[in-house]
Amino acid sequence: MNMLPVIPFAHSLMEIAVKKGGFAIDATAGNGHDTVFLAKLVGDSGKVFAFDIQPEAVIRTKERLQKERLDTRVELFRTGHEHAGECIPAGYHGKISGAIFNLGYLPNSDKSVITRPETTIAAVEQIFAMLETGGVIAIVVYHGHEGGAFERDRLLEYVKKLDQKQAHVLQYGFINQENHPPFLIAIEKR
Amino acid sequence: MNMLPVIPFAHSLMEIAVKKGGFAIDATAGNGHDTVFLAKLVGDSGKVFAFDIQPEAVIRTKERLQKERLDTRVELFRTGHEHAGECIPAGYHGKISGAIFNLGYLPNSDKSVITRPETTIAAVEQIFAMLETGGVIAIVVYHGHEGGAFERDRLLEYVKKLDQKQAHVLQYGFINQENHPPFLIAIEKR
Repeated sequence: MNMLPVIPFAHSLMEIAVKKGGFAIDATAGNGHDTVFLAKLVGDSGKVFAFDIQPEAVIRTKERLQKERLDTRVELFRTGHEHAGECIPAGYHGKISGAIFNLGYLPNSDKSVITRPETTIAAVEQIFAMLETGGVIAIVVYHGHEGGAFERDRLLEYVKKLDQKQAHVLQYGFINQENHPPFLIAIEKR
Repeated sequence: MNMLPVIPFAHSLMEIAVKKGGFAIDATAGNGHDTVFLAKLVGDSGKVFAFDIQPEAVIRTKERLQKERLDTRVELFRTGHEHAGECIPAGYHGKISGAIFNLGYLPNSDKSVITRPETTIAAVEQIFAMLETGGVIAIVVYHGHEGGAFERDRLLEYVKKLDQKQAHVLQYGFINQENHPPFLIAIEKR
């Protein structure tokens, strides 16, 4: 496949935006895959702030980081991403170069616990405020589950209104696939 | 800007799909910019087939190619792209690795001459049939002009129905900009 699937494309944006020694956010730590990915990008001298409201996600992420010996690069918060602004020390505000969201539910877990538009948008707003110029928020939008379409529509409505002088908002997705494939919304700070 | 604007992103897909010695199509030669771009990609031993229905477009493209000493790599047809299937010799069918469309009107010319959904879709269909596996058609959709929204909607309707076992159809565009910015539809043959 010559064109990148959604998740590899999201990762390629992070690889461009996040440098060694930089600071990044995993807004939905989940099973820890993206936390590990970001921890590798920031390197030894960088830092990742990771959030998840579900205890099992925090446990799985911590285990994965320890296994990869990356746990010292990551500060893991067992709380919703809508608290990112207060949890991340002020010294890092304006210096975040990348952030990832995977919307929806935690795979292999309780599917009734899902991300929700109010808290997702609050988190995007706070994290956008903490980005450096050129920093990118990549949001992988899963919308096939109950409540997913509602969150997708609220989020699209919100990002379409972001001032084009302050942000580039990109939508990237495959439009001929069945079963509601995830797509990407990426926001770059100007 | 860390995220690629629409046209550079379309070009990046061509850079991946089109190799030296390969075959490519500029379906809307226009002022010849993309014809030159593709002629450089295919190199000395490759070939580009370029189409435009407007005499001044063919003249401008020819001049630009001659100036860059690339005219021997390009076969230029003064006819609509819906004749691509008959114009391109059978020996090249199944071997085309990239094609570009810029929909809308010829810049700095008569704005009443525009691409139209029937002929655009006929051309896409014929060119898709001529692609090799992994070949990519990149369609830059301008839709701010009179008739542009109509063409956009017909084309989207058409590409969304392409069989996902035969094609990946990607949509790439910025969704918070004013004045109907162009977006990209890219079709990769599986």
